[in-house]
Amino acid sequence: MINTKQKIPVGILGATGSVGQKFIELLTNHPWFEITALAASERSSDRPYKEAVNWFMQSPIPPHIAQMLVKRCEPDLDCKIVFSGLDASVAGEIETEFRQAGYIVISNSRNHRFDHDVPLLVPEVNSKHLEIIEHQKNGKGMIVTNPNCSTIGLVLALKPLMNNFGLESVNVVTLQALSGAGYPGVSSLDIIDNVIPFIRGEEEKMETEPLKILGRYGNGVIENCKLKISAQCNRVPVINGHLECVSVKFKQKVLSGDIIKAWQEFSGDPQKLDLPIAPLQPIHYFEEPNFPQPKFCRTLDKGMAVSIGRLRECPIFDYKFVILSHNTIRGAAGGAILNAELMYKKGYLD
Amino acid sequence: MINTKQKIPVGILGATGSVGQKFIELLTNHPWFEITALAASERSSDRPYKEAVNWFMQSPIPPHIAQMLVKRCEPDLDCKIVFSGLDASVAGEIETEFRQAGYIVISNSRNHRFDHDVPLLVPEVNSKHLEIIEHQKNGKGMIVTNPNCSTIGLVLALKPLMNNFGLESVNVVTLQALSGAGYPGVSSLDIIDNVIPFIRGEEEKMETEPLKILGRYGNGVIENCKLKISAQCNRVPVINGHLECVSVKFKQKVLSGDIIKAWQEFSGDPQKLDLPIAPLQPIHYFEEPNFPQPKFCRTLDKGMAVSIGRLRECPIFDYKFVILSHNTIRGAAGGAILNAELMYKKGYLD
Amino acid sequence: MINTKQKIPVGILGATGSVGQKFIELLTNHPWFEITALAASERSSDRPYKEAVNWFMQSPIPPHIAQMLVKRCEPDLDCKIVFSGLDASVAGEIETEFRQAGYIVISNSRNHRFDHDVPLLVPEVNSKHLEIIEHQKNGKGMIVTNPNCSTIGLVLALKPLMNNFGLESVNVVTLQALSGAGYPGVSSLDIIDNVIPFIRGEEEKMETEPLKILGRYGNGVIENCKLKISAQCNRVPVINGHLECVSVKFKQKVLSGDIIKAWQEFSGDPQKLDLPIAPLQPIHYFEEPNFPQPKFCRTLDKGMAVSIGRLRECPIFDYKFVILSHNTIRGAAGGAILNAELMYKKGYLD
Amino acid sequence: MINTKQKIPVGILGATGSVGQKFIELLTNHPWFEITALAASERSSDRPYKEAVNWFMQSPIPPHIAQMLVKRCEPDLDCKIVFSGLDASVAGEIETEFRQAGYIVISNSRNHRFDHDVPLLVPEVNSKHLEIIEHQKNGKGMIVTNPNCSTIGLVLALKPLMNNFGLESVNVVTLQALSGAGYPGVSSLDIIDNVIPFIRGEEEKMETEPLKILGRYGNGVIENCKLKISAQCNRVPVINGHLECVSVKFKQKVLSGDIIKAWQEFSGDPQKLDLPIAPLQPIHYFEEPNFPQPKFCRTLDKGMAVSIGRLRECPIFDYKFVILSHNTIRGAAGGAILNAELMYKKGYLD
Repeated sequence: MINTKQKIPVGILGATGSVGQKFIELLTNHPWFEITALAASERSSDRPYKEAVNWFMQSPIPPHIAQMLVKRCEPDLDCKIVFSGLDASVAGEIETEFRQAGYIVISNSRNHRFDHDVPLLVPEVNSKHLEIIEHQKNGKGMIVTNPNCSTIGLVLALKPLMNNFGLESVNVVTLQALSGAGYPGVSSLDIIDNVIPFIRGEEEKMETEPLKILGRYGNGVIENCKLKISAQCNRVPVINGHLECVSVKFKQKVLSGDIIKAWQEFSGDPQKLDLPIAPLQPIHYFEEPNFPQPKFCRTLDKGMAVSIGRLRECPIFDYKFVILSHNTIRGAAGGAILNAELMYKKGYLD
Repeated sequence: MINTKQKIPVGILGATGSVGQKFIELLTNHPWFEITALAASERSSDRPYKEAVNWFMQSPIPPHIAQMLVKRCEPDLDCKIVFSGLDASVAGEIETEFRQAGYIVISNSRNHRFDHDVPLLVPEVNSKHLEIIEHQKNGKGMIVTNPNCSTIGLVLALKPLMNNFGLESVNVVTLQALSGAGYPGVSSLDIIDNVIPFIRGEEEKMETEPLKILGRYGNGVIENCKLKISAQCNRVPVINGHLECVSVKFKQKVLSGDIIKAWQEFSGDPQKLDLPIAPLQPIHYFEEPNFPQPKFCRTLDKGMAVSIGRLRECPIFDYKFVILSHNTIRGAAGGAILNAELMYKKGYLD
Repeated sequence: MINTKQKIPVGILGATGSVGQKFIELLTNHPWFEITALAASERSSDRPYKEAVNWFMQSPIPPHIAQMLVKRCEPDLDCKIVFSGLDASVAGEIETEFRQAGYIVISNSRNHRFDHDVPLLVPEVNSKHLEIIEHQKNGKGMIVTNPNCSTIGLVLALKPLMNNFGLESVNVVTLQALSGAGYPGVSSLDIIDNVIPFIRGEEEKMETEPLKILGRYGNGVIENCKLKISAQCNRVPVINGHLECVSVKFKQKVLSGDIIKAWQEFSGDPQKLDLPIAPLQPIHYFEEPNFPQPKFCRTLDKGMAVSIGRLRECPIFDYKFVILSHNTIRGAAGGAILNAELMYKKGYLD
Repeated sequence: MINTKQKIPVGILGATGSVGQKFIELLTNHPWFEITALAASERSSDRPYKEAVNWFMQSPIPPHIAQMLVKRCEPDLDCKIVFSGLDASVAGEIETEFRQAGYIVISNSRNHRFDHDVPLLVPEVNSKHLEIIEHQKNGKGMIVTNPNCSTIGLVLALKPLMNNFGLESVNVVTLQALSGAGYPGVSSLDIIDNVIPFIRGEEEKMETEPLKILGRYGNGVIENCKLKISAQCNRVPVINGHLECVSVKFKQKVLSGDIIKAWQEFSGDPQKLDLPIAPLQPIHYFEEPNFPQPKFCRTLDKGMAVSIGRLRECPIFDYKFVILSHNTIRGAAGGAILNAELMYKKGYLD
């Protein structure tokens, strides 16, 4: 048995929401972290979690979590780290309060992503950005964010291309899963036998977040990378797994074999440090002409790997290809946990 | 009562298939045409249509059609025109035989689309191409084709842009309906809770067919237009209605208001000639941010109109927008019937 | 042109909800009724309907309705009849207020269905029950209700059996459509790749409402019929159309041919009086082994007919069969309109 | 490492079909069995499995299986046991040939289920029936069958009720998953936004198979139990997991608490013998009013347990309730493997 007394106590903000539930599912039996506090909106507080939540994960609620009393989102929780799955309408202020009170805030919300002293972290891509935390003066704690669920697959696919060949422009059209809209989210009446070519705010996130993530850190400043991105976002009747049709223009002539090699060999700190939730191989390339598909690829490598396929030349850009990543694991709760694991190994949690 | 004796007798090749069924549905009660022959593969021949077909249109089989005996696809059918919904594996040869025997072949199959003397016809876009028929020497009859179901929405949207502003390049990513794959087509096990980023041959069609359709006719020759097109095609769990996310680069600076105006004012021969199946207005522009959607827009104007929405500037191209068209009506049987109606009014059927 | 000045002015309570929208769709161009007032909850009031509603019918909002100002549900509306699609949480009291103020309330809500002086009306089945209105003393107006969407198909199928053969017991298991849960109703995350074997309150309604509807009226009293009914209700991923698997035990030995004959010959006041929204034939029997199906049968006869199929002997009961009816047309708004039409023709609206 | 040399070599008949693929998935890493032969129809034979199959399991093809050459279904395979997932159109004869040649045939097909000397085996329910194998004279081998995928959940739920209280009659209406129809099976065009109230031959199986399974074995004869069963079967748009709405009449008065207790305490040989694929607890009862649901319960206990919920009194029968079981695991490949495991432990494979 693991001695749970030595585990780091963590709390979950927005514990009853869809990201909150995923945090609980993924953190159960985590080797380093132990859930010691659950917090949610006033409506849920002071009730046992089991009664406060409309649980819809596939695995049942872990028994000790089911009985835990839900608290309010106030900075008096008995834990060191808080994972935030709060709605953006309240996340900004609450997360700031927790940082000021000394908590380490690992946030999945968009509010602080563009704060100049907050890293927008994807450990395989820009672990060096973590250093900017030392410049966070706004309280005794710290805030680290992970990107939007549709951004994550894209930056993981682009990073090795940028490193090896240089990128000029990226066009992306998404087919995004329903779980990305939270719960209850999209009405069944709106999406069965239908697709919706619009997700509020999504295209703006995809066109800006990669610039910070792929940017360069130095002297306390993250400098955005130069890259033109255009995004069109669609909602499709898929439960989990965002598919993205991408076209890229390089800064030089590139062979397709070299692109695939760059993807397959891509690896970062999570792999070097053997982080518990990290995928063994961040990017899997499929040779089958009709892959990747959400249903078959989304849970690859615990849902933390990105699947790519259909690399082919493009009459307008240089190449086009298809990306698939799990939006609530790699793109939300799992990504945030990976951030916390990186911080643990790098000594930020001491 | 219409005097059916004066109607033009038409036959349907591939009458039991999905396009064949749609031909029957749309031609029932047609003011000019009357179905007098049904033909299909050997397996179906010599049986009453009702028994040979696995009918899955929403309206029931018209009673007089139900009793009609299915013939083989041999050029001894009692009719003047044949509408062909044949599978591409057999369509090429059979259609040639019918032309040689003097039939007017209105084909929905891909086989003859790029024959140098065969028009690839979209009446609102290139009705002048019909004149090339006079150069068809290969038999006493003639062949006219309509484009692939994913091409049709695109060329209707592009034509007014090309006419008014000039086009340089077009990037398109599709979300295509299941009925485009025929019947039984895509297994439910493959597509529920899934999307498939691949449709065999589809991207090639979308990148080449518009060049001929948008090309210029003169002196017996259709000259392809100069335009770079890149297509990525996806299958989604929608019954009918292809959605397309398009980005375009113009030859000049264009205002968005002028684009919308060009679409809304676009009209062609089918509208001028008041063809029975023609949409009153070929292109409808939606101001709602989340439109067009397959479920709500596919049957607009009898399923023959194209819906467009979400026009906005693009960081890479000039503009991006979304197109929706009904793939089995405008994109297949209805499009072919419109071709026949145009030919009737232009005197080609005399 | 119809002289709309002579039409009866009607209002819609709960006009922004799913039943309210269906009322608007079905009443547009009605020969006898004209929508002159729309009312909804406070949140929607004083706004143009177009802005207050999240319209999701397939046809667009009729233009004159789109501009109409939504009022509160208070009995000062400019109309004679109100069609109520109110939520049961508020319908009871509001409908009572309208009756007291002299309005004719045609309600689709459950609150007054079991009031001893309120008819639970299905015009083909129990039009005589309408006479009980004369005993309504509670105000100057009147209230008439129609049954739950899952009850309606059942009682229409049972009535001719009861009349011809006598019924002892009925077992029914439903597969109910999503639109029955209103909008937004069931989350897509809950129902894609799933069915839910529970609909709150539904089984109770199915086991009790038929007893009143099939009961006998005399001397100001509706006497419930004697019949044992057992219901199990399931939600399935179908947009419209409730399917019901029924087993029945008769009071005598019956031949299957006689059952089918009884269904096919069944007809009532709506057919005799030629009511505008009435189906030409209330019950259609299908011989195909795999019919009726929601997708192909729900819109039969304007969505007002019931489809039945698969009649066969039962090892436990006498016979089993399958029923299909459109839940938001025959089972809600269309059923209520049929009630109003019957009342018009019977002189109750003078 | 397990010494695979000591494992029992097994072959799979119909290895490329949907049940065949499930056999491969579930037998990979089995502690007692090792796949040494794959056989399928002539079309697939002599090709590497990877090329012959259209693999659609969620996990990838095990590498050593992918390279294995597919053989014909002739009794010269290098193995002792054959698991048969053959189509019923060919299974009868082929399985007989294998038995005559000395193979132990564990079949999922329906052909031999009612042979008087063949057990229709559900190890928790009728493991004693296995003894009838000794009376199989028709060759040196033996045949054991498992029931239809819709029967299995029902008999597991009924067995403890029959043992404890005695059963008189059972009415069951099913909502069955798509994978039960094999691959490609049901066309997406037929089932999206639809349900189909018919599955060929299914109701007959459900009304007869339980009588044999729940029957008594003695002196080389299985005597059917006396029980009236009526079944209505529907196909619904669910990938995996058959839901069944059941009503039962007991031979005596029974309390609901005793029924739940009987289910929860139910256990059989697979649990006593600790068979590898056996569920720890064959029946799970859910107190939640809207459970069991296919999506959340189908993979319970490796997909081998049955979920039950909604026990309540019935106005016609005594009680009604809802059953859920995984149709391709418990109801097909997993059930067959459990049979083989039981035979191994009972010494039939020596």
